[in-house]
Amino acid sequence: MELHVAFRPEEAGDCHQRVVAVIDVIRATTSILVMAERGCDEILVGSSVEAVRRYRAVDPGVLLAGEQDGRAPEGFDFGNSPAAFAATNLAGERVAFATTNGTRALHLVRGGPVALIACLRNRAVVAEALMAGARALGLDATVVCAGREGRFGLDDAYTAGAIVEVMCAGSGNDVIELTDAAIAARALFRAYPDAEALLRVTRAGQQVMQIGLTPDLSVCAELDRSALAPRVGERVRLLEP
Amino acid sequence: MELHVAFRPEEAGDCHQRVVAVIDVIRATTSILVMAERGCDEILVGSSVEAVRRYRAVDPGVLLAGEQDGRAPEGFDFGNSPAAFAATNLAGERVAFATTNGTRALHLVRGGPVALIACLRNRAVVAEALMAGARALGLDATVVCAGREGRFGLDDAYTAGAIVEVMCAGSGNDVIELTDAAIAARALFRAYPDAEALLRVTRAGQQVMQIGLTPDLSVCAELDRSALAPRVGERVRLLEP
Repeated sequence: MELHVAFRPEEAGDCHQRVVAVIDVIRATTSILVMAERGCDEILVGSSVEAVRRYRAVDPGVLLAGEQDGRAPEGFDFGNSPAAFAATNLAGERVAFATTNGTRALHLVRGGPVALIACLRNRAVVAEALMAGARALGLDATVVCAGREGRFGLDDAYTAGAIVEVMCAGSGNDVIELTDAAIAARALFRAYPDAEALLRVTRAGQQVMQIGLTPDLSVCAELDRSALAPRVGERVRLLEP
Repeated sequence: MELHVAFRPEEAGDCHQRVVAVIDVIRATTSILVMAERGCDEILVGSSVEAVRRYRAVDPGVLLAGEQDGRAPEGFDFGNSPAAFAATNLAGERVAFATTNGTRALHLVRGGPVALIACLRNRAVVAEALMAGARALGLDATVVCAGREGRFGLDDAYTAGAIVEVMCAGSGNDVIELTDAAIAARALFRAYPDAEALLRVTRAGQQVMQIGLTPDLSVCAELDRSALAPRVGERVRLLEP
């Protein structure tokens, strides 16, 4: 099997015949994962604050989460803070979650045979699920990074490398052919033993620190804390734009 | 100043107000550099074998270089082999050189205030020229990787990191703000102390080995062997498509 890392959604190509994981580690996919960890039944992802507001008009039972200038928009139940979600019981709740940056990558991969929400917290279980899916279906795998405002994001590339590392270690008798990008991602992961220190030097991490939410980076940096690998199209659904 | 690395030409944005270097280390920019090292007066870069053939029809004094299926096309004087150029005296010659992969990046950067041909062989002198240009003009800098068939190329990213390393070391009192991609490129360079070993694992390197031109990788991997930094628009000119 071939294992590719798309550093930006544009580099993913057609994902419909591949098993895929999507990363926006600071902070959308970490927030989604933590919501699931805290018992949230369903996360409905919209591409804007307005989109999830409109959605609640037709489905008033949902809670709203999202961010505008670093804060929860007016009328929202939550911001976009993994640390805040981690301190909240969401058992049985459904959350409509607005994220601009991560949405493009999520839409790209939906409809594929296996499409998983990935971050550092569920790195190992995602890697195992990708391997299992690729084996069972005889498909190649792609890890898609959301990137940052259209550019390469070091935080996502590092997280992709963390997944590549586990997939290679667990490949057994399977031969995994790494693309150049997958080799590079793995080298980046190996170069920074301290995930939180790495996140702090990235542009996305610095933006989080500037809005006073540094504790979020600690939650984003925790490796292999969760056994959940939410699927796009199941526990995580995408709202139409 | 900001120092950015575009892992693919699409990520470079508008380069007309930045100092830039272009990398297609396996093998176009290494070939161009070696031609200059061997005394070549002018390298005229075309995007295809047909383009440089057409050019010779109007300028019969040029030699032709390029590649088709790993060999010199019929009627061409040279292939696209840095090792072969290194063994040839090109003093006073002019060469029309066909390269598909590198052309897009070259066209992107032409017209800018400083646009340099970069590879590992001239890494240090390019880094110094970028710093000097950025200082003198008060501009930011971008290192543009040609990439490989539209994808991230580890060979080019590594070479970009080698340039970033020297620029940071020579920044003196200037504060260089590295983008995420520049940080990543530098980490890749630091991760592989043996440049030739790195080139051998890249897709581009493996293609060169498959066509029996492994010695080219040794020439491509030599660090800081040349004091030349050919400028796009001067010693290196681009033929119209």
